This record gives sequence, C-alpha cells and structure tokens, in this order.
Amino acid sequence: MIGIDIAKTDKNLGERKIIEILQSRLDIMPKMPIPFGDDVSAYAIGNNYLAVLKTDMLVDKTDVPLKMSLWQASRKAVVMNVSDFAAKGVKPLAILVSLGLPRALRKKDIVEIGRGLNAGAREYDTFIIGGDTNEASDFVISLSLFGIAKKDEVMLRSGAKPGDLIAVTGSFGKTTVGLKILLDNLKVSPKIRKILVESVLMPHARLKEGLALSKTKAVTAAIDSSDGLAWSLHEIARASKVGFLINKLPIAEEVEEFAEINKLDPLELTLYGGEEYELVLTVKPKLWRKAEKAVKEVGGKLLPIGKVTAERQVLLKIDGKKRMIEARGWEHFKG
Amino acid sequence: MIGIDIAKTDKNLGERKIIEILQSRLDIMPKMPIPFGDDVSAYAIGNNYLAVLKTDMLVDKTDVPLKMSLWQASRKAVVMNVSDFAAKGVKPLAILVSLGLPRALRKKDIVEIGRGLNAGAREYDTFIIGGDTNEASDFVISLSLFGIAKKDEVMLRSGAKPGDLIAVTGSFGKTTVGLKILLDNLKVSPKIRKILVESVLMPHARLKEGLALSKTKAVTAAIDSSDGLAWSLHEIARASKVGFLINKLPIAEEVEEFAEINKLDPLELTLYGGEEYELVLTVKPKLWRKAEKAVKEVGGKLLPIGKVTAERQVLLKIDGKKRMIEARGWEHFKG
Repeated sequence: MIGIDIAKTDKNLGERKIIEILQSRLDIMPKMPIPFGDDVSAYAIGNNYLAVLKTDMLVDKTDVPLKMSLWQASRKAVVMNVSDFAAKGVKPLAILVSLGLPRALRKKDIVEIGRGLNAGAREYDTFIIGGDTNEASDFVISLSLFGIAKKDEVMLRSGAKPGDLIAVTGSFGKTTVGLKILLDNLKVSPKIRKILVESVLMPHARLKEGLALSKTKAVTAAIDSSDGLAWSLHEIARASKVGFLINKLPIAEEVEEFAEINKLDPLELTLYGGEEYELVLTVKPKLWRKAEKAVKEVGGKLLPIGKVTAERQVLLKIDGKKRMIEARGWEHFKG
Repeated sequence: MIGIDIAKTDKNLGERKIIEILQSRLDIMPKMPIPFGDDVSAYAIGNNYLAVLKTDMLVDKTDVPLKMSLWQASRKAVVMNVSDFAAKGVKPLAILVSLGLPRALRKKDIVEIGRGLNAGAREYDTFIIGGDTNEASDFVISLSLFGIAKKDEVMLRSGAKPGDLIAVTGSFGKTTVGLKILLDNLKVSPKIRKILVESVLMPHARLKEGLALSKTKAVTAAIDSSDGLAWSLHEIARASKVGFLINKLPIAEEVEEFAEINKLDPLELTLYGGEEYELVLTVKPKLWRKAEKAVKEVGGKLLPIGKVTAERQVLLKIDGKKRMIEARGWEHFKG
C-alpha cells in the first residue's frame, strides 16, 4: 500500500483538474481519430473504420446511492458506459469487466453482481466477454466497451455550428429529484415517487436513438448528459467553439410537481443534475425532420430546446429575459 | 454506498471461485473466438482478424508493495496488462485507463501517476488514448488494452500436445525473493539485493519475445507467469487437457544464493511465486530451433524445462525422483 500524506492534501483538486494534470503528462498518439475529452476513444483500423473504446468506473462510495441493490448497481455500470456509446452513435459489440470487491461480499452478492452485469449487457444486445476480479476496499466496477464504427458516423462533441438546432431525447431533472427523495425523504405523491426513484435505480441509455441519429448524418455534435444538462451544453459549446441560446427547458412534469410542493427551483433541478442518460445533440436545421423521424421510428423522441449561436455564451431565455446557464454539474472529488 | 454485512462473510471465497460464480451468470456470446479464462478476450472483426481486448485492475492494497512509488505502481499496471498480450503474441495498439483515486492524493502524486502510465505505455510502443477518473478509498488503476491479431497467430492456453517441449523466457523466483526482502528484511548481499528488489519494482513484459514467437507458429500454448510458475503450468495443463514433466527448473542464480543463506527451499521460491512476467510456452519439437532463433533475434532467450505428457499430472523430476507440482499460486482474497 502506498503511504499518502493526508496532511498535505490539495483540497478540492477536482476531477476535471486531475484529468487535465494527467493528460498533460501523456504523449499523444499521432493522428488520434478522437481527441482526449470526448465520450469515447478510438483507434483507426483502416478503410475509414474506427475501433471505438470506452472505459468508465463505478465506485459504490460515490456513484451508488443507498437503497440501490448490487444487481442495480452492476446493471447501472453497464448503462452508464453504453450511454457514452449511444451519444457517439456507436453500437457496443463487447464488454470487459474489471471488479474490485470488498472481502465482505458473500456468494449471493457475487451472484447478484454477475446477474446485474449480464442484464445490462443483454438489454443493449451485447455480451460480457471477459474480465478480472480484485480485492478492494470499495465495490468497484470498471467496464471497457468495444465497438466498430465508420469514422464519419461517429458523433463528436466538436461539430456544432451557429444556426444548428439543439435537441434532447427526453426530459430532465428526474434523477436529481429521485436522489433527493432517496436521500432526504422529501414530500412527494406516491404516484410520481415511483417514477422519480426508478429513474435513479433503473436508468436507461438512449442507444437506439443514438444509433438511428448517427445514420442520418443530421447531428453535428453530441454528448450524453451524465454530468447534467448545463454541463453537457457547456461541453459541446467549448468543444465546438460556439454558444447556445436555450428557449425551451425540457423540465420533466414530475419535477415541476415536486418543485412546487417542496418550494424548490425547477430550473436548478433540471439544469444542474447528473446521472441522467439523455442525449444532448446539435442538428443541422435542414435535416431536422429526418433526424426527428429516425428517432420516432425507433420509439424515441427528439425535443428541440434552442439554437446554436456564434456568440460563445450559454444562455437561457425565459419570458423574454436572458440569463446565463452556469458551467457546473456533477464532479467527483468535490462537494 | 452498499451496506455489506461483514458478520455473514463467506470466508475465503477466493478469486477463482468468485470468477466461476460470475461467469456462470453470464450469457455467452455465440462463436466467442477466445473462451473465458484465457489471458485476453477477443471479438471477430472479419477476414480472420480478431480485436483483442484485455482489462486488469491494480489495487494498491493488494498489488503494490510498500516502497513502490506511485510512478512505479502506475508503470507496473501497464506492464502487467502488456504481459498478457505478450503471452498471446498480440501487439497492444492502444490503452485506456480508469483510475480510482483517494482524496488525499496531491497534485504531485497525480503528476507521478500520469508519468508512470505514460512511461509504461511508451516502453511497449503504445499510447494511452483515453480514460476516466473517480474517487475511491484505494488507489485503483484499471487498464484496458486493445490490439488486432490474425486469428491463427494468437497463442491460446489450450493447444499443448503430448510430446511438445515446455519453455520459459527467463529464470524464476526473483520477485518472490524480492518481495520477501522488501517485507521481511532478510539477509542478502548488496549486489543481488538490487537485482531482486528491482525485479519487483520494475517488472518487464516479454512483448518482443511473444510477438516473435507468434509469427513462428511453433507455439501450441502460452500463458504469462503472473500467478507463479506452478500455477501457469497447471493452467496450460488444464486448458490443453495434458500433463507436464518438468526436468529442469529455471531457478534464478540470485534465488539459489538467497535460499542458501536464508535456509529456504529454492524450489518453493521458484515454483510458487507470483508477479513474475515471464512467458510459459509449449513448443512443437520440430519447430524448436525456429522458435529459439526467433527469440534470440529479438534479444531474448528460450529455456527448455520439460515435456508435455499425455498423463494429466504436473510432475517435477529431480535426481531421478518424481514429485507433484501443486496447483497453487498467488490468489486474491486468500492468505
């Protein structure tokens, strides 16, 4: 074990700063097809095809709310990785799993973990083909996804152009509220309680939508919303060097009801949540109908929420008034 | 966080049992090109090529000896994954890294981790192309490797035939002894101390050897020796449904010297160690010279240590007497 001097801790270094420090120490592969900082990585395998790779780790201490079962946590680890593939329009073909397991886990816990991982994989028509287990203090699930995609069909964060429409694949705020209900026992009607809590415990990745959209070539930039809507917008804005004017906030109706009863700000709940797995996309205006149709055909929806602007600000316009959408969202090592 | 009831722990479930339980809950991908339980996994990408994938996790608590720096631990995480690719004769083309980081880490620690990961990748002529960081109690490095290989050039564990020669790429026991020196402060001359400790802190993967051997088509089965020589032999024997007769144990000379001074059994140190990254291979007798030459040309060596037998026992013959080599080696969650 490595001795760590707690007294000398850099407080709140923050996940994004840590990633920046790490990346600055890495030699960069020449002609890397997808730059650092997008949702997935890639290796060019010839004939304009990419091997698409993704790894993401779920740690129970920070990523798993109390009351989530091991089955649910294991399934969620798959969903959160698949969601990144969904945002890029890439089908996951195979999954590897590396587990860190506390010694205290019993046989029935291991069974639950295996079943949860398998359930997640099968939901998205893929398989777990290998992995590794280790002893650890936390329950850790590190997944690696593999897929193959045509280079020009991968939806990056960086292609948004002024005039493009901004769209999302569903409403926002449910997981933020669901987490509040699980943690703080806030007031809520039983009917919507179930929907909100379910959004936390049983998230779904928008894979069908992402795959359908990538074929349309209508999408200029895309990201999943796992760090919250506001953060996702800012990430596309930053990577694409554009701004956004949001004129229709996709607030979930359950969130409006909950906010009213508990006197909370529905905008805050909708914009600055996290652990949501909707897609946030920018779409060429001329191909909007094509994109909308493609998503409908796979049983999903595409909600327009605003426009890409040349001015590099992320703004929200309500009742004729503009206000800034802040660049904040869920981040490890903080809060 | 998930509540774990420590009182009800299944004591010593063991890593191999845990993997067995997990695998039995997974649906198996049809026509999986490499079965569960080999060193790497694969997905058939057409034209007889495989995408080769590997994930392995290093957890400081169990995998990192005291006195190993963060730079060394990070580099080692790469080496141990590359070693599995080496054993299969597959070149790693790209690496993804998923980190679990305790809050106590400082900026200079993060810098060291980034540099160590990069050093490991560059040593084997590959790059880190993406990843993810998380907060965790342990320092955890989960790596994913990607490569492409011709299907018939991947050296599996399962092809050994009676009459094949058994070979290793170097001597054994150094890391076991090196660990003892680091942990128990045993007697040793300064000259060999450095060699033994270095074998623990700065391991090397036999990638050149593995790549050269896979081209010869001389190798019928292969594995890396990260769980010890005895375990590696038993794994090939099990997967290939054969036995082994070892007649020349590859004891490192430093290990012989150390064993003599400290009155330890050199056989024990050589057979039942771990964290060693030599390759253990079976070779077609007719192609032995070709294999030996190929390894020499890349600056390595191939040491014959015995023969594959039809009788399914793993035996050691010394001074005319045969004894069993036990199926034990390093295992997480035990000891």
